[in-house]
Amino acid sequence: MSKSLRLFAFAAVPLLLASANSPAAGKTMADVLAASKPSDWRPLDPQNTLYMDLPKGRVVIELAPQFAPNHIANIRTLVKGKYFDGLAIVRSQENYVVQWGDPDTKKPFGEAKKSLAPEFTRSAAGLNFTVLPDPDTYAPQTGFVDGFPAARESAQGSAWMTHCYGMVGVGRDNDVNTGSGAELYVINGHAARLLDRNVTMVGRVLQGMELLSTMPRGHGAMGFYEKPEERTGITQIRLAADVPAAERASLEVLKTDTQTFTDLVESRRNRQDEWYKVPAGHIDVCNVPLPVRKVKS
Amino acid sequence: MSKSLRLFAFAAVPLLLASANSPAAGKTMADVLAASKPSDWRPLDPQNTLYMDLPKGRVVIELAPQFAPNHIANIRTLVKGKYFDGLAIVRSQENYVVQWGDPDTKKPFGEAKKSLAPEFTRSAAGLNFTVLPDPDTYAPQTGFVDGFPAARESAQGSAWMTHCYGMVGVGRDNDVNTGSGAELYVINGHAARLLDRNVTMVGRVLQGMELLSTMPRGHGAMGFYEKPEERTGITQIRLAADVPAAERASLEVLKTDTQTFTDLVESRRNRQDEWYKVPAGHIDVCNVPLPVRKVKS
Repeated sequence: MSKSLRLFAFAAVPLLLASANSPAAGKTMADVLAASKPSDWRPLDPQNTLYMDLPKGRVVIELAPQFAPNHIANIRTLVKGKYFDGLAIVRSQENYVVQWGDPDTKKPFGEAKKSLAPEFTRSAAGLNFTVLPDPDTYAPQTGFVDGFPAARESAQGSAWMTHCYGMVGVGRDNDVNTGSGAELYVINGHAARLLDRNVTMVGRVLQGMELLSTMPRGHGAMGFYEKPEERTGITQIRLAADVPAAERASLEVLKTDTQTFTDLVESRRNRQDEWYKVPAGHIDVCNVPLPVRKVKS
Repeated sequence: MSKSLRLFAFAAVPLLLASANSPAAGKTMADVLAASKPSDWRPLDPQNTLYMDLPKGRVVIELAPQFAPNHIANIRTLVKGKYFDGLAIVRSQENYVVQWGDPDTKKPFGEAKKSLAPEFTRSAAGLNFTVLPDPDTYAPQTGFVDGFPAARESAQGSAWMTHCYGMVGVGRDNDVNTGSGAELYVINGHAARLLDRNVTMVGRVLQGMELLSTMPRGHGAMGFYEKPEERTGITQIRLAADVPAAERASLEVLKTDTQTFTDLVESRRNRQDEWYKVPAGHIDVCNVPLPVRKVKS
């Protein structure tokens, strides 16, 4: 916490506290990103990108079909049928979730399914899993799969996405088969890892998270809004592939299976900025930065 | 994530997944709290309680002099000298911190000190430390001291409070001796454990956190507001002891050195509510609930 902006500075001469054998030794996060190559970044797949338009701006969500193919197919069907357009943010609970969907649970689903079998976990086999070096409280291993924070039992055991800040999941009732993707939530506080393996997760917010995280809290139980006028309406949710190319968000994300990403993790595990006096030496999966940038035009 | 409020229910018949030897076996968090005794709770000490009044309401902060006696003494001096009255929230950074103080860094400190030696850690000896059972990514042990989340090297090694959601710390410049307590911040997202042992922490927000967490994000570097009109003013900050008793927040907090608290932790480690299908079996220090309730009058 720098006292004020003008007094904050990245270290001109990084403290050499990291192992000299590490490629990231002595590098700040800014150093690592500045040295990244164009091939370290990937564009978003328009088939896996949602735009949620709210009165104050756009939220961009990246979907992870490698973890939840059936729910994501259903979400695409809902979106193409304009299911979410005119619905609302229905819940904003402090240090937990913001949730959206149909407050009246009446809107027809069109061609989409009303319930789906859970996709809480899948086999880790076949996933491009970059393992983090530190122990995790909840899982034998944590790391990243194509940019998504995840955990696994082992290389061949089960795997799942982790409930980090900004991660998006599927609301359901007590019956595990009641999720459809028509009600979605995003984590707006400390990682809710207790939810891991209990919910189908579908992706993460890449841009516009502040529009959701600063929603006034609901004062009903579990942060639901008690009065319709307290809710924020959803103008529309569209799949990027259905938006003219010129109107798409031109974003690219750092690939998590690159040396640059590994260096970035190390530079954050052991912060080299002058402000830090005791580098943590460890990092948890929900504290790893996942860089997103605008495509240079 | 329950799909909707009316469909959400605590289990009438808890699933018996926890160890039958555990006193909390089969209990939900609601069960545990309902069974708590009056002696499991403690009132706030007015000498260690701050009221920060904002235009939309009051934030109640509990101070932890067992960790930062010198900074907290200085904060009391600043508060008694009305230092914070009329100052502002100066920074709101997504998934990191909200910070307040003097945007112009010009207001006289009165009898308070302008800088203090750091109180980043202290000896664990003499602390009433309730240890959590699960491994932590960052520290050999984590747990609670008098209601504050904390970590320690060992029972006789160093100890420090952890940067969980709602925890309050002291802003400083690169020089570790530049903190005074005149600039404070609160964690508004995932635990920023990388800051542990790099900052003097002074307490936690007990009530009114939503007033801070939903502050519009600043668009300057590090979330600082760029224009004065974007800032929210602080009406006043007072020590509860200086407020007439009838105007004080009548709050009490669950003692963290009780069997009830241990049972509460266990009921959250292994959620028994019907909605949960795979109890986590683990819990991290920043996911433990710290119950606060109004004193029954």
